[in-house]
Formats: sequence, structure tokens, C-alpha cells
Amino acid sequence: MNGRPHVVVVGGGFGGLYCGKALRNARVRITIVDRRNHHLFQPLLYEVATAALSPADIAEPIRRIFSRQANAEVLLGEARRVDTEKQQLHLADGVLDYDYLVLATGMTHSYFGNENWQAHAPGLKSVDDALEMRRRFLLAFEQAERETDDDTRRAKLTFVVIGAGPTGVELAGTMSEIARRAIPRDFRSIDTTTARVLLIEGTDRVLPTFDAKLSAKAQQQLEALGVEVRLNSFVTDIDDAGVTIGNEQVAAENVFWAAGVRATPIVETLGIELEKDGRVPVRGDLTIPGHNNVFVIGDLAHCRAPETGTDVPGVAPAAIQMGKYVARILARRALGDDGQATPFRYRDKGMLATIGRARAVGSVFGLHLSGTIAWLGWALIHIFFLIGFRNRIIVVLRWAWAYLVFQRGARLITGDVDQPIRKQSKPVREAK
Amino acid sequence: MNGRPHVVVVGGGFGGLYCGKALRNARVRITIVDRRNHHLFQPLLYEVATAALSPADIAEPIRRIFSRQANAEVLLGEARRVDTEKQQLHLADGVLDYDYLVLATGMTHSYFGNENWQAHAPGLKSVDDALEMRRRFLLAFEQAERETDDDTRRAKLTFVVIGAGPTGVELAGTMSEIARRAIPRDFRSIDTTTARVLLIEGTDRVLPTFDAKLSAKAQQQLEALGVEVRLNSFVTDIDDAGVTIGNEQVAAENVFWAAGVRATPIVETLGIELEKDGRVPVRGDLTIPGHNNVFVIGDLAHCRAPETGTDVPGVAPAAIQMGKYVARILARRALGDDGQATPFRYRDKGMLATIGRARAVGSVFGLHLSGTIAWLGWALIHIFFLIGFRNRIIVVLRWAWAYLVFQRGARLITGDVDQPIRKQSKPVREAK
Repeated sequence: MNGRPHVVVVGGGFGGLYCGKALRNARVRITIVDRRNHHLFQPLLYEVATAALSPADIAEPIRRIFSRQANAEVLLGEARRVDTEKQQLHLADGVLDYDYLVLATGMTHSYFGNENWQAHAPGLKSVDDALEMRRRFLLAFEQAERETDDDTRRAKLTFVVIGAGPTGVELAGTMSEIARRAIPRDFRSIDTTTARVLLIEGTDRVLPTFDAKLSAKAQQQLEALGVEVRLNSFVTDIDDAGVTIGNEQVAAENVFWAAGVRATPIVETLGIELEKDGRVPVRGDLTIPGHNNVFVIGDLAHCRAPETGTDVPGVAPAAIQMGKYVARILARRALGDDGQATPFRYRDKGMLATIGRARAVGSVFGLHLSGTIAWLGWALIHIFFLIGFRNRIIVVLRWAWAYLVFQRGARLITGDVDQPIRKQSKPVREAK
Repeated sequence: MNGRPHVVVVGGGFGGLYCGKALRNARVRITIVDRRNHHLFQPLLYEVATAALSPADIAEPIRRIFSRQANAEVLLGEARRVDTEKQQLHLADGVLDYDYLVLATGMTHSYFGNENWQAHAPGLKSVDDALEMRRRFLLAFEQAERETDDDTRRAKLTFVVIGAGPTGVELAGTMSEIARRAIPRDFRSIDTTTARVLLIEGTDRVLPTFDAKLSAKAQQQLEALGVEVRLNSFVTDIDDAGVTIGNEQVAAENVFWAAGVRATPIVETLGIELEKDGRVPVRGDLTIPGHNNVFVIGDLAHCRAPETGTDVPGVAPAAIQMGKYVARILARRALGDDGQATPFRYRDKGMLATIGRARAVGSVFGLHLSGTIAWLGWALIHIFFLIGFRNRIIVVLRWAWAYLVFQRGARLITGDVDQPIRKQSKPVREAK
């Protein structure tokens, strides 16, 4: 393997994973670097945050995915800096030389300069994020059950989701459904069906990247589940007491962030000009200006579709297609073919967003779908792309279970229960 | 419900849970208090620590278990102090009045006065303990894969389990089996089959509470799996470098504690004399001296079987039997029958310990079993007692999967990956 060109792939998300797998027969030596030991099936992460799935159901060790691929090696490490001149990737604790670099580290949360909001409104990118969200969501009902003050109880039972993209819609729909259908019987002092779920969106419709008709359908379905949808609304502050929307104060102890993302910081070391959100303006072949051995793929790449002039969306199918595209270029180059590649072309097969148990909206090959049929399509596609046969069985079973008995299987509060979310709850009840 | 006597059950383990459930038709009002929101099926916790099961597979919200029991209420809170005079239970943030108190808070780790060992050798009691153990176990191989120094690599691949009771035996057997069978193919630089697993025991045999013949069988099976069993051995120090066993230094970066337990601290507030390990010497009816409305059950109770003069063992079946026994007394008292109860009698139906995939030893109704048949018995019993039908299906499936393909389904490193276990690993490899 040592005479072969060394391809370093940074990030084991959809882009990096499919790139690495597609290179399985190429005459290259591959090192996949990730700071986590697992590939995470991000589209189902909200199901972990809302206690339907366990982290292990939607994650698979990257090492195991590549275990039978002899030309690939997996390395647990944090990539910090790219030295494009020396062709080196600097990790937190080491250096890797590369012949070709594929950057696929994705996006992280952005609070638009209000980083202090993060403590009050966690986002959803990693397993740990999802477990923290689950902890807060479940603890809110526990604390409300013990709360004697009406206003405080109301604030504990008010859930605000900021941002109505697919993740925000999924979170808000599922949370409202859980409060109304799954758990009412479990509590004695509170009526969980009175919980408020607010979904705040800055544009004039939910799912703004979807077709307008689908946005309307999605909003109907959300409202049927009891979600209060606030459009054209901007959050101006988040603090201990709740959220400020424009001039309105909403007392809420549970705020979740699904609004902004920005590129992972490593791109700042590439020495090229970036987009405002940090994404990398790539060339037609997904290389960066000035370096035709450095590729940027997935959400991290700002790539304009040549025919339509529109941006390639930051979705899993685009990342997968980019990963495979770059793998084809690299396989050819490894054989000495340095010719110009035809530019990357995104094939839009549609998009789907789920809203609650057995509800979804989407377009597949141009066809608009909503309701149960869309949900079935969504479920099939997600199971198909889920890595690992075992995971697929388990996820199908858990969904079937949740569907039949309206229960969430993973209602665990882990981590520090004593740690107050905002402030300590009041004494339970007085002694007689 | 308000005229009924108030039974406060502290702890949602086996004892508390079965006591609460057995009171379902009693004319009492029950409050179950636990600092965690879930009942944990402790006997399978080692399967979480070794990445076969997810936490949610062996846990169920206590609230859900009692959701249809109208006379029961569940409260998330930490019990701190009992005031037997005023009949009050003090929580971290509130006070509960009781007519009857059932203490079932179980045991916690004990490092025999060497509490500084805890940071180096975590124990296994809670979900968070199991996830921390899993993190260390999986991270050890990841770090070894990147380690260039032979001695350090060897220390990273040396696993020491202290204490050869059921938990220690299960951990050591499973860890050795994983290193030898499940993961060798996933690594490129290291040979995981060379990993050492040491099991340290102070007495002259493994599973000292089992029959001596079974101990011998268990030791054979452990050694067949590659575990080095060290009997009559005492750990005199644990630090960054490893473990000191008598005068011998073993360089090991992964040490796990399965040796000592002591009573949870709340019993110290009962105002009575306790055993050396903090357990409560209960009377024949499981009440404490001086207070016939305060019961102590489960591992926390030091209870001598009247006929044999031997101690009731600290195992799940004993806790379950105690819980049901106390429930019968309380149900009678609620009806005005304050007569003397016949003393608690433990019915020993046998005990089983598993050693690896499809190996176990045990005695069931006096019959000695070992090997696959014992494992099957063990699996059946554990599935039978697992709370929640969904959990049972999932656990059966996961076991079937692990059995067929020799893979662990939950190989996730969560929590802070950057956090060094002991010290930072060296630079991966040098630049060329």
C-alpha cells in the first residue's frame, strides 16, 4: 500500500463515508479521520432527542464500516489545521501527510453572534447534543409535576423550538405529540396535554427550502398536533426567563435551537476566502481555488449548480453524491489520469420532512406527497440508507412499537439529574 | 386517597419496585421517590458497559411502570435524611410526611477508604457508570492503535478487573471475548487478541458466594476465554501507571472496580447502629429497631435467615421477595391488622453468573449447571424479569445478533472524546 497516493478524508459523516467506501477498489491508501468513533445517521437524531431511539440505533463505528476494506485505515483524532503548502493535516496530537485531502467536517451550530444563547438553547448535531436535549425535555415534565407555583409550572411546560427547517419541524411536531399522546397518563399533578410548543421561524413559511404548497401542508399538520407556528418572527433574546420574540416575552424554560449553522472552524486554515457562513466556495470539481488536491464536500461546500445557478442544498443526498463524485476523480488520478473532470452535478431526487407519528411532507421525483404516504416513503428511505443491518431491524421495531402503543422507548434521564436546567425547582410540597 | 395511610418507598430498584407494585390493591397511598427517572435492570448493566446493549434496553421509566396504578405517585428527587420522630423524609428540595417508610436505596461503590482510587477505577452501578466504562474500554483500543511506544501500547491494552463476584466475572469474560473475537479485524496497527485481561480476587476462588465446584468451572471458562485469574491477591494501590497487586506492579491504563460496596449514606440518618459496611440490621419483619413503621429492604438490609443462620444474599431475587413481603404487611396494617408478622424467609431459587457469549455457571433449585445450558437458563430468567415487553424483544434480538455475528451493537464513544483517560496519547506518527 505504501507506494500508493495517500488520501486523507476528514469527517465520517455522509460525504466522507461514501467517499471512502467508493474508493474501495482504487489504487490509493485512505485514512479516515474523525473526532468521534462513529458515523451518525443525522436525519434521525431528533428521534434520539425525543426519546424514541437510542444513540446506538442510529450510529455505527466508522472502524467497523471500513473493517473489511484493506486500503482504508480509521483514526480517532481531531483535525485542527490544514497546511496546503506542505500537504499536511495537523491533528490535536499529531500530523498526517496527504497527497489528496477530502474535507467533510460539516457544519456546527451558529447563534449569529449571540453565543451566550447556547447555554439556554442547545442545538442538535451530535449524540451528546441529543442526549442533553432529551434530558431537558424529560426533566421539564418531572419538574413541572413537582412545581407548586402556577407561572413557573407554565414556563416549565412551554417548549420553544427556534427555526422551522426540517430539524425544527421534526422536533416541534414530535414534542407536541409526546406531550399530548404518549405521556399524559404517567403524571398525577400536571396535565401534559396543556404543554405549549412554539415553533419560531424568521421567513414567511415553515420548511422554507421546500415547495410552498408543502410548507402550507406541513404547517396544517403541525397545528393539528397542537404546535403554535410563528412565522416572520425573530428571536431577539434568550435568557433564564425565556425567549423574546420581537417585543413579546415568552416565559419558557425549554428552548431548543434549530436555526443557524456555520462551517466547522478548520476551513479557516485553508487560506482562501470563505462565504459569510464559513462555507468553502468550491470549483466545479469540488476542489478549492489554487489547490487541485484539496476537495471540500458535503454541507461544508458552497457549490452552485451550473445549469440552474442555484446552490446545491446542504442535505445528505448531496453529500453522498459529492463523496462518490470525488472518489471517481481520485480513482482516475491514482491511475495517472489528470484530465479535467466534468463538473459535479447534483441530482435532486426530492426531499422529505416528517412531522409526527406517521405524518410527513415531501416531494419525490417532482411528485408532492403529504400525510401517511409521505411518512411511509420517508421511513423506507431512511431505513434504506441507515448503515448496518442490525440497526435497520431495531429501528423498524422501535417505530412499529411507537406506532402501535404511542410510547417512546428511551425515556431515560441520564447525566447529572441534580444539575439544574435553569434554576432549582421549589420545594416539592410542604410538610403537613 | 387522602384518608389512606401514606407509604413512602425510597428507591426504584428491584425491592422498591416490587413493593410498590404489590401494593396495587392495598388501601394505601404510595409515593415512590428516586433520584433517577428510571428503574435499571442492574444484572445486565455490564452488557451496556461492554457495548452490547443500549441503556434504554435495560431501563424503564418508573413513572411509566406505575402509570396505571391509581394509588401510586412517582417523584423524581434525592432523599437525604429520615426523621423517624416526625415521620418525615427530607429530600434535597422538599419534605415528605410518611406513615410508613420503605428504604430500598441499595448500595454504592466502596473503595475501602481509598476513595482516590475511584478516578482510576470506576465502578458499575448506574447508566452513567456503564457509559463511562464503555467509553474507557473502547477508547483504550483507539488510543493503542495510534500509540507508537511499545510499553505504553501494552499498558493501554491491559485491562484489570478488581473483584471476582458476578459483575467482575461478567466484565472480565466479556472484555476478553470482545478483544479476541469481536474486534480484531477492525484495527490495522494493533493485534487486539494480545490484549490482557486480569481478574483480581482477594479470596481463594472466583464467585466466592457460589458453590466451590461452580467456582472452579467458572475459572476454567474464564481462562479458556483468555482471562488471567489472580486469586488470593490484594490490590494495594491504583494510580496513573496501573495497579499494584501485593508487591507486583502491573502497568495498566484501564482498571475497573467490582470489589466493594457500602450502604447508601441515607441510612446513617436512621439513628441506629449499622453494620461495618453500613447495612441496616433489620428485625425479622424487616423493620428497624425502635420503629415498626420503617422498613429496610434489598441489599441495604442485613437480614439473617432464622433457620440457617446465614445472611440473606444481596441479590435481585432477595430484594424482590423482601419488597413483596413488606407489601403484604402494609396491606394488612392498612386494614387495621397490627398483629406480629411471621419473619421474612428467603427462598433461594439459585443463582447464575454468565461468563461470556453462551457460557455461564449456576445452581437452580439445587441443580448445578455450567456452559451453554446454564447460559440459556440465565438468558431466559433475565428476559423474564426484564420490565417492559418492548425491552424484552429488543434484548433477545440484540443477543441473537451478538451470538450470530460476534459483534457488539453499541460501540459508541460518547461524552468528551478529548478528555484524556490518564494522560494524553503521544503524537500519532511523525510527518515524513
